[in-house]
Amino acid sequence: MSYKVGIDVSGGDYAPKEIIKGAMLAKQEFGADTVLIGRVEEIEEQLSLYGCSSHDFSLVDAPQNIEMAESPAASIRRKKKSSIVVGTSLLKEKKIDAFVSCGNTGAVVCASTLILGLIEGVERPGIALMLPTKKGISLVVDVGANIDCKPLHLFQYGIMASVYYKLVLNKKDPTVALLNIGEEATKGSEILKNLHQLFYSSSLNFKGNLEARDILSGKYDCIICDGFVGNVALKVVEGSAETVGRFLVETIGRGFWGKLNLFMIKNRLKKFKGLLDYAEYGGAPLLGVEGIVIIGHGRSNHLAVKNAIKVALREVERNLTTEINRRVNEICQDSGVRQMLAP
Amino acid sequence: MSYKVGIDVSGGDYAPKEIIKGAMLAKQEFGADTVLIGRVEEIEEQLSLYGCSSHDFSLVDAPQNIEMAESPAASIRRKKKSSIVVGTSLLKEKKIDAFVSCGNTGAVVCASTLILGLIEGVERPGIALMLPTKKGISLVVDVGANIDCKPLHLFQYGIMASVYYKLVLNKKDPTVALLNIGEEATKGSEILKNLHQLFYSSSLNFKGNLEARDILSGKYDCIICDGFVGNVALKVVEGSAETVGRFLVETIGRGFWGKLNLFMIKNRLKKFKGLLDYAEYGGAPLLGVEGIVIIGHGRSNHLAVKNAIKVALREVERNLTTEINRRVNEICQDSGVRQMLAP
Repeated sequence: MSYKVGIDVSGGDYAPKEIIKGAMLAKQEFGADTVLIGRVEEIEEQLSLYGCSSHDFSLVDAPQNIEMAESPAASIRRKKKSSIVVGTSLLKEKKIDAFVSCGNTGAVVCASTLILGLIEGVERPGIALMLPTKKGISLVVDVGANIDCKPLHLFQYGIMASVYYKLVLNKKDPTVALLNIGEEATKGSEILKNLHQLFYSSSLNFKGNLEARDILSGKYDCIICDGFVGNVALKVVEGSAETVGRFLVETIGRGFWGKLNLFMIKNRLKKFKGLLDYAEYGGAPLLGVEGIVIIGHGRSNHLAVKNAIKVALREVERNLTTEINRRVNEICQDSGVRQMLAP
Repeated sequence: MSYKVGIDVSGGDYAPKEIIKGAMLAKQEFGADTVLIGRVEEIEEQLSLYGCSSHDFSLVDAPQNIEMAESPAASIRRKKKSSIVVGTSLLKEKKIDAFVSCGNTGAVVCASTLILGLIEGVERPGIALMLPTKKGISLVVDVGANIDCKPLHLFQYGIMASVYYKLVLNKKDPTVALLNIGEEATKGSEILKNLHQLFYSSSLNFKGNLEARDILSGKYDCIICDGFVGNVALKVVEGSAETVGRFLVETIGRGFWGKLNLFMIKNRLKKFKGLLDYAEYGGAPLLGVEGIVIIGHGRSNHLAVKNAIKVALREVERNLTTEINRRVNEICQDSGVRQMLAP
């Protein structure tokens, strides 16, 4: 059976061009069946530019667009015909099996929560970022859906991240750690200290704290933090990688010999840049909502879009939402955990 | 008049050697008058190794040491003869004019708060980090003293950072921004949104939000955030700079030609490393306590120690604590601000 992935063609810095190109590439490479959601005229025009017929894709008209700076809640209320609202509604009606958007993150989270609803037993949705490290991917949850995290939210992020890593990233007993200001169990806020106990009393493979400086070390599979902290951490990683890279190129390339050296290592530098290009790793799954939703980076190019579609299909095939529902309820009903959670 | 700077000789990864070397260098370069606080025998032994007489320095015995992993509150209660407790006590008794420690940060904050007390009107101490950027220093407050920040704490960090930047870093009307998950005023927690109004109603040169990805851009002079977020951000900067640097060297240096290229740019890479070596920028002033306290990086070498002593002397000369006291009370008594702060 072929699954359908809905794509928000209007969202993202390089929309609609790169988004459509990504969908075409996904069809070409692994036969992905995609539904393009956006301004139909614009989509048809783009497709014809690439010598592609609009009959090769399903098209759904969504003439409105939610801009990056718009308030999420207000915009999804006001713009019923925006690609984000139309896309999540199609997912709700099961006309598509997954939805990918590189648009306004807050609006995607808000629309998904309101239109799809949360998986039974889950308290808050969380955005899971796949952070590339030398030792493989570290999955960081949450990186911005929930900036007012309660202990139970963080605990459930641990469960959902663990399910995701096992099911979609194929690792048997993924490790889970809390992002904190030190490795010792005595560090951090009262909330984090109490969370340790909760995690240890569960069946998760909990490893304690991860110090922020080790975030790129690949030491643990799942890294749990509140949405504000996770968003800051992620953006600081992006920002410093860029700054450091630029500083370095300037330092190396000064003067004639410098320029010559820079020329000689040019290809290596390009390869290196690819390593840090988070866009290449596809999008960030939104965990906890009743449906498969992938949030792409605003700066996604066609490769990022193609990879996000691939990730979405894998999540659908592996029944991610059902499994999250099962595990969250199983672990939260466990006697030890229930006792810890009792008020 | 010559000011005396007390140095914790036992704290830091390279103590006592690098600490003592730093004090010697400070004496040599700018005639700093330092008081070495630690195990006297050990200090004398080190000084003689460098052909230095112990009569060139004041020595104060502090036979105990607070380890990096020890609980701050418990250790300063238990170890009255530790270099940190002895140092802050000497400062309280005005036997020294400033205290520099590269030891357990939590213990320095705790000892300073309890022994020196807070400047009148100040609610919480904050650690100010001088982050080197291409456009000069950005002062980030707080990077770990206070992980449970109330709006008033953050507001006062803004005032203190502004005073510091003007007085010690010599800039007339330094800009102040809040570290947030987006630039728009509507982003972030309720606390941050309300803080905007408070800052705008004050006489500070407030510029709104700084997105975390721009933390190294040097866009603003003072960057305000809660201690948990600041600590994570700072450590992620450190961690990613290191990781990116190492990745890059490995990428460039693969194979024979790679190794040759790497050799040719070796000196440039070294210079670049210096740029990112936060230790070279001296220590982080602890703002808000009744006395001049500088917290050095745990990995401080002698250059970092020398620079921390220089910074300490400048703070003493410019009467930092008096000026913080004056400005905090002036701004917090301002009618607009008082109205905003009223419960």
